[in-house]
Amino acid sequence: MVLKNRTIKKRSSKAGLPPGTLVHVGEKKANNIRITYLDYDEQNFEEKSFAKIEECFPFKTTPTVSWINIDGLHDVEVVEKLGKEFELHPLIMEDILNTGQRPKLEDFDKYIFIVLKMLSYDGEKESIEAEQVSFVLGKNFVISFQERIGDTFEQIRDRIRNAKGRIRKMGPDYLAYALIDAIVDNYFVILERLGEKIESMEEEVIGDPTEKTVQQIHSLKRQMISLRKSIWPLRELIGGIRKSESSLINETTDFYLRDVYDHTIQIIDTIDSFRDMVSGLLDIYLSNISNKMNSVMKVLTIIATLFIPLTFVAGIYGMNFEYMPELKVRWAYGAVWLIMITIAVIMLFYFRRKKWL
Amino acid sequence: MVLKNRTIKKRSSKAGLPPGTLVHVGEKKANNIRITYLDYDEQNFEEKSFAKIEECFPFKTTPTVSWINIDGLHDVEVVEKLGKEFELHPLIMEDILNTGQRPKLEDFDKYIFIVLKMLSYDGEKESIEAEQVSFVLGKNFVISFQERIGDTFEQIRDRIRNAKGRIRKMGPDYLAYALIDAIVDNYFVILERLGEKIESMEEEVIGDPTEKTVQQIHSLKRQMISLRKSIWPLRELIGGIRKSESSLINETTDFYLRDVYDHTIQIIDTIDSFRDMVSGLLDIYLSNISNKMNSVMKVLTIIATLFIPLTFVAGIYGMNFEYMPELKVRWAYGAVWLIMITIAVIMLFYFRRKKWL
Amino acid sequence: MVLKNRTIKKRSSKAGLPPGTLVHVGEKKANNIRITYLDYDEQNFEEKSFAKIEECFPFKTTPTVSWINIDGLHDVEVVEKLGKEFELHPLIMEDILNTGQRPKLEDFDKYIFIVLKMLSYDGEKESIEAEQVSFVLGKNFVISFQERIGDTFEQIRDRIRNAKGRIRKMGPDYLAYALIDAIVDNYFVILERLGEKIESMEEEVIGDPTEKTVQQIHSLKRQMISLRKSIWPLRELIGGIRKSESSLINETTDFYLRDVYDHTIQIIDTIDSFRDMVSGLLDIYLSNISNKMNSVMKVLTIIATLFIPLTFVAGIYGMNFEYMPELKVRWAYGAVWLIMITIAVIMLFYFRRKKWL
Amino acid sequence: MVLKNRTIKKRSSKAGLPPGTLVHVGEKKANNIRITYLDYDEQNFEEKSFAKIEECFPFKTTPTVSWINIDGLHDVEVVEKLGKEFELHPLIMEDILNTGQRPKLEDFDKYIFIVLKMLSYDGEKESIEAEQVSFVLGKNFVISFQERIGDTFEQIRDRIRNAKGRIRKMGPDYLAYALIDAIVDNYFVILERLGEKIESMEEEVIGDPTEKTVQQIHSLKRQMISLRKSIWPLRELIGGIRKSESSLINETTDFYLRDVYDHTIQIIDTIDSFRDMVSGLLDIYLSNISNKMNSVMKVLTIIATLFIPLTFVAGIYGMNFEYMPELKVRWAYGAVWLIMITIAVIMLFYFRRKKWL
Amino acid sequence: MVLKNRTIKKRSSKAGLPPGTLVHVGEKKANNIRITYLDYDEQNFEEKSFAKIEECFPFKTTPTVSWINIDGLHDVEVVEKLGKEFELHPLIMEDILNTGQRPKLEDFDKYIFIVLKMLSYDGEKESIEAEQVSFVLGKNFVISFQERIGDTFEQIRDRIRNAKGRIRKMGPDYLAYALIDAIVDNYFVILERLGEKIESMEEEVIGDPTEKTVQQIHSLKRQMISLRKSIWPLRELIGGIRKSESSLINETTDFYLRDVYDHTIQIIDTIDSFRDMVSGLLDIYLSNISNKMNSVMKVLTIIATLFIPLTFVAGIYGMNFEYMPELKVRWAYGAVWLIMITIAVIMLFYFRRKKWL
Repeated sequence: MVLKNRTIKKRSSKAGLPPGTLVHVGEKKANNIRITYLDYDEQNFEEKSFAKIEECFPFKTTPTVSWINIDGLHDVEVVEKLGKEFELHPLIMEDILNTGQRPKLEDFDKYIFIVLKMLSYDGEKESIEAEQVSFVLGKNFVISFQERIGDTFEQIRDRIRNAKGRIRKMGPDYLAYALIDAIVDNYFVILERLGEKIESMEEEVIGDPTEKTVQQIHSLKRQMISLRKSIWPLRELIGGIRKSESSLINETTDFYLRDVYDHTIQIIDTIDSFRDMVSGLLDIYLSNISNKMNSVMKVLTIIATLFIPLTFVAGIYGMNFEYMPELKVRWAYGAVWLIMITIAVIMLFYFRRKKWL
Repeated sequence: MVLKNRTIKKRSSKAGLPPGTLVHVGEKKANNIRITYLDYDEQNFEEKSFAKIEECFPFKTTPTVSWINIDGLHDVEVVEKLGKEFELHPLIMEDILNTGQRPKLEDFDKYIFIVLKMLSYDGEKESIEAEQVSFVLGKNFVISFQERIGDTFEQIRDRIRNAKGRIRKMGPDYLAYALIDAIVDNYFVILERLGEKIESMEEEVIGDPTEKTVQQIHSLKRQMISLRKSIWPLRELIGGIRKSESSLINETTDFYLRDVYDHTIQIIDTIDSFRDMVSGLLDIYLSNISNKMNSVMKVLTIIATLFIPLTFVAGIYGMNFEYMPELKVRWAYGAVWLIMITIAVIMLFYFRRKKWL
Repeated sequence: MVLKNRTIKKRSSKAGLPPGTLVHVGEKKANNIRITYLDYDEQNFEEKSFAKIEECFPFKTTPTVSWINIDGLHDVEVVEKLGKEFELHPLIMEDILNTGQRPKLEDFDKYIFIVLKMLSYDGEKESIEAEQVSFVLGKNFVISFQERIGDTFEQIRDRIRNAKGRIRKMGPDYLAYALIDAIVDNYFVILERLGEKIESMEEEVIGDPTEKTVQQIHSLKRQMISLRKSIWPLRELIGGIRKSESSLINETTDFYLRDVYDHTIQIIDTIDSFRDMVSGLLDIYLSNISNKMNSVMKVLTIIATLFIPLTFVAGIYGMNFEYMPELKVRWAYGAVWLIMITIAVIMLFYFRRKKWL
Repeated sequence: MVLKNRTIKKRSSKAGLPPGTLVHVGEKKANNIRITYLDYDEQNFEEKSFAKIEECFPFKTTPTVSWINIDGLHDVEVVEKLGKEFELHPLIMEDILNTGQRPKLEDFDKYIFIVLKMLSYDGEKESIEAEQVSFVLGKNFVISFQERIGDTFEQIRDRIRNAKGRIRKMGPDYLAYALIDAIVDNYFVILERLGEKIESMEEEVIGDPTEKTVQQIHSLKRQMISLRKSIWPLRELIGGIRKSESSLINETTDFYLRDVYDHTIQIIDTIDSFRDMVSGLLDIYLSNISNKMNSVMKVLTIIATLFIPLTFVAGIYGMNFEYMPELKVRWAYGAVWLIMITIAVIMLFYFRRKKWL
Repeated sequence: MVLKNRTIKKRSSKAGLPPGTLVHVGEKKANNIRITYLDYDEQNFEEKSFAKIEECFPFKTTPTVSWINIDGLHDVEVVEKLGKEFELHPLIMEDILNTGQRPKLEDFDKYIFIVLKMLSYDGEKESIEAEQVSFVLGKNFVISFQERIGDTFEQIRDRIRNAKGRIRKMGPDYLAYALIDAIVDNYFVILERLGEKIESMEEEVIGDPTEKTVQQIHSLKRQMISLRKSIWPLRELIGGIRKSESSLINETTDFYLRDVYDHTIQIIDTIDSFRDMVSGLLDIYLSNISNKMNSVMKVLTIIATLFIPLTFVAGIYGMNFEYMPELKVRWAYGAVWLIMITIAVIMLFYFRRKKWL
């Protein structure tokens, strides 16, 4: 929800500006912009960190695969300069800076632009945090933009550094795939957390539901809705890369994309069945409340129907009429007790037959 | 709802008239018709205001981009004259005047006709007001029709006046795009308001729901339904412009339209998840009522089951039988008190075990 | 519902007959068959009424536009003769006579066959009455079949008589369009009525719901379902005419059909949002019942928990034990009152804190 | 349900057998297999009944239309011999014998294979009975397989015998159409029954619902589900015949198929609206229960809140304190009555204002 | 559920590894890997069991059909060696080892890769166990991978051994079909179990629902959800094989695949109607609770409204006023009894009219 409204606020605050105006829309999540640079081919490997964006421009034309990663988007100028140098369309740069994008793919002839959501689970707040990651995939480079320092790409960097797997032998399209794959793989971690939460919620609902339970179920539902919204467009996106027939995507990479595509569908499937489960939780909760009410009612009814008639009998012989012959009879008191006990026993039998006891 | 039925009334009052009959169907929202005129190319810029529609006819053939804006639709004659001069199809003119249109696009060879809904949020009435805006996009002109004075286009006029952005360098298709973009951007403002309303409603539902809450939730739901109805066709509409292959739409503009298209999808997504949330609110509300009933029942049951047996005991010794041996025993009164307290304590233990206390 | 089952009964009573057998299936809604005839082109106009169907056969070959209208379907022979003369397919004639058709379009080479439902709102019974109208559109004629006298076409006849609008200048396809348009326009009248009914029902539900309210909501829902069933196929039907590429449909008429198509979508949209509203009504109604139950429970609980303990206290001192020291104390009676008032005040405070008062 | 599970049991009992193994899966519904034979063209007609399947083999090559009908499927050998003679694919023969098929169409070059469900309403058990009917449509023959003797085809036989309608003039494709049409027409009879049942259930729900009502609604719902499952594939099936471009289907027959197709859609539409109605019934039922509970609660509350305070007052003056000045006052008894009546009147006013009375 | 989350855990534990890394993800369900080998053509048949995977490599090039079956996936090396020998894509081998796959089909030129779920019903735990089965279909071999020893293929082995049916005459594509068919046929067994469970649950819900019932309904629902998730992709998968135009699939086999396809649709249909039934169960359960509450309330109300007024009357004459003339009247006591009985009778009549008795 937080994520949701923030997105809209961001956009609504921009309403009316000419399209293509570069403004960073979103929270400032990093203090400094960090520019890192990885350059590799099968034999060579180089890793650098820059203070100024201009320093990485010379690498633009090298035949090796270059991966420029920018952490932090609040310095509009950096993005602008980079965009000019790499001839990015102004609306692309606007999209990079506006962190309220829907995941999407745009295929230009010279480069492919991809926007994704990187999710992380904040254990303390019990909420899912989303960070926008954009990729520009060019002929021999990948530029990635992140909102803050820290990502799920460390293992990819390791693979490049140590020439693990086939990444060093492949082109920038494989790198882009690897980055997307890392993000999608990370969704499984989020799903696992949600799955655990649903299971613990389930035990709570069955065992000992409190008045807060509905709200928690509701909040789980909302997390599912916003998660689905972040992931659903991915399916189309990856399908789009595969269908794009862009010269930037190698045929061998296509097979790997198919793999990510399968994972995306699996994730969406899982979210959908999670939603069904959460809806089921609400049903259990509501029928639990009904059951409790029912058992409260039964106790009340048993006590009341047991004692009200008896109290009436006692009331009768508490009357002060002068002429009440029973009052004088010696065994009358005992008889009244007998009558009362009989009534009570009949009642109890009745309750047992009705299965209230 | 108001919007809804009004639309139908409008239409139903026209039932049977020959198609193409020009009648203004809708409320008269403006006293005077205001005709304004903007003419520009990269170098030149001219802005005028007319009393008579005929005064702007000479500009029809100028090679510059002309934007004729008409505020107020109740003067049928103005639209009629304009329609004849610009050779608009009679049904188009009927659509302009009939403010109960569904957003739509009609592609003629010489011009493209677009109907949209401009929304504004009336803070006082807490309702969304809709105004119909129609565009006719020709080879070198855009004519816009609005129901009343006042719109979200002021920033576009500023951009044209001050040659900000690329608007002065582009043709009328870019102008049409900018107008649509302004309307769509404004939807985000409406969504933000609705989001705030949902959040405050959520706090109310969890914290202190009153009997009015359901009605408010219901009215929110209806706003969402009518909002969705206004915006949903937009998706198809903008998709339609992009696919139209009309010679009136420049290729460069297409990219911008893709942007608006993305925003439209984002808005529809948001409305859908708002709907889910509002449905969730109702669930919370209903389970809150159940919970309250439950707690009311518990109090009743505790009091009743605690005192009804005790009252019975008191009733027993209030009987006036002559022969009741207990009454003569000195410590009997104390004993009865003891029995009563024991019963009460057992009851309280039972309630605690049942977690009612 | 009535409409619904009647339709099925009609069909089921025909089960087993060889296809193409001409039997009038449906209620006899008119006493006499009325055959009227309008013949026109731009210059000439002729209007006649016939006793025998054969009298209109000579007009079959005239180059002018001929509109033959038949009110009343119970005389199978009339339809049979007409069908033979105009070479209609036997199944078409069967469809005309069987008033339980779904709206549909069938494109033969020589003519187009259209079945529609004309709806009217019966204010007394508060129900929607449906009448089947069939059209056969040929090269220079339109034949229309109605179940009973009285229709929504009077304004079209006036337009033809008085040469209003463009109808006299256009061919039979425009006439067919005008007839369909009149029927569709009339749906808006029905929708307006339903809208009013929903609004008044809404006030009733919020203000003063009775036990009948659910049934009324349910009946509204059913009207909506059957309305949707009558109108939904229209969309496909009109889309079908437009796509048919039949030589019988002029290109200029196509634009008008687009207009009817838009209206149909608008009507379906409206019915859908009406359905949502009616569902919403049920939610409000149910939560109203819950709220009432809750308030009834509260009153009971307040009274019972207030007086049951007090009655117990009174019961204690109504006991007849010989040794009850309090009874002898002079100020005891006052003290008991004091205790009782204290208990009551505490209870009331408790209720106020629980917000039951 | 019965039908449902039986189907699965049938299949599951066959799990593991090699495909194409001929086993009759299903109940044995007939004692004897009955083989009947109709052979006709426009001039000639012949009808026979055989003891052995081989007797009808000679008719295979006659140019006339041959309709071989087999009632009873438990004699696997008969189907096997027939299949070999007519060169049917082994899986087709398996499908004929396995009565748990989904309605389907399979187009071979030499013949078309169709499986349908013939439904009948068992008034006593109030359930819908399904029987599987398979057709093999060849160049000059139709072979039909039924589970038991007795069908809805008698009228078709009459038409052939008496040369009624156009059936004798047409080929085997028309015969196949007529058989399908007879089955589909019979569905309307079933729908009529269901419609009546829904209406009577509706009256029961509104008037005098019992605890069994939910179960009956539930069973209605299940009948609807299984009915829909039997009929839904028909739509596709008939659409499939029409699209098949098989040389076995004549162009003239296509028009008749269109008619059956329309009926199928109408049936599905009707089932769907029946489902909506049945769901509505449940809503009414549940709100009826709530209303009743509410009225029970009101009676309890009125009585309790009326008498509990009065009983308390009576309790006060039933106390045995020695010093209770009121007891000595002469008019006190009357005053207490007055107070009690006043309290009761106030209470009654309060209830009336709350609209509980 | 168990299955569900396990799957995600498996994946999430792999997040970040380079794609194509061979790790067995899933439970180790077998102690030893068992490699069995069947080689056959129409004349010859050979069956072996190997200790080492390398032993079966020589059979790779024989022209006969070879079926290599591997039970147990925990020995990554075996799969790796096999993969290298048969030139399988690394991602394929990863998919084989990762038992959390969604059923899918991948068509390479040289082989087709198929992943399926083999289900079995664990009667004790009342849960459905899933095992992943993968097939690699090559030009003259089928390799199958299973998680544990024991499968539903025994009957296929028998058919091969004894040359039953047409399996020995057909190629590896028919073998693959037979294996898929065996798995799908086994789903019917699972469905039968679920159907029985639903029926017994139904009886429980109608007859004697306990508080555990909702949970059981909920767990049934979840089983249905996860079952649907396992089976749903099958439809697409088998459709995919049929559309693949792979040279590995013979035309004759296509017909058999159509058969499996039909079964798959039938299974999905059945699961869908099972879901509807289970939802219906919840409705019955909830309305049962409501009904019970209602009857509890009625008993309470009857007793309370019957005795509370009577107790009040008794209370009146229990008051100790000195001047209460009634108390002195001889017949007063009898009269009070009469009044009480009259009140009770009136009450009982009232209850009967309200149909509470």
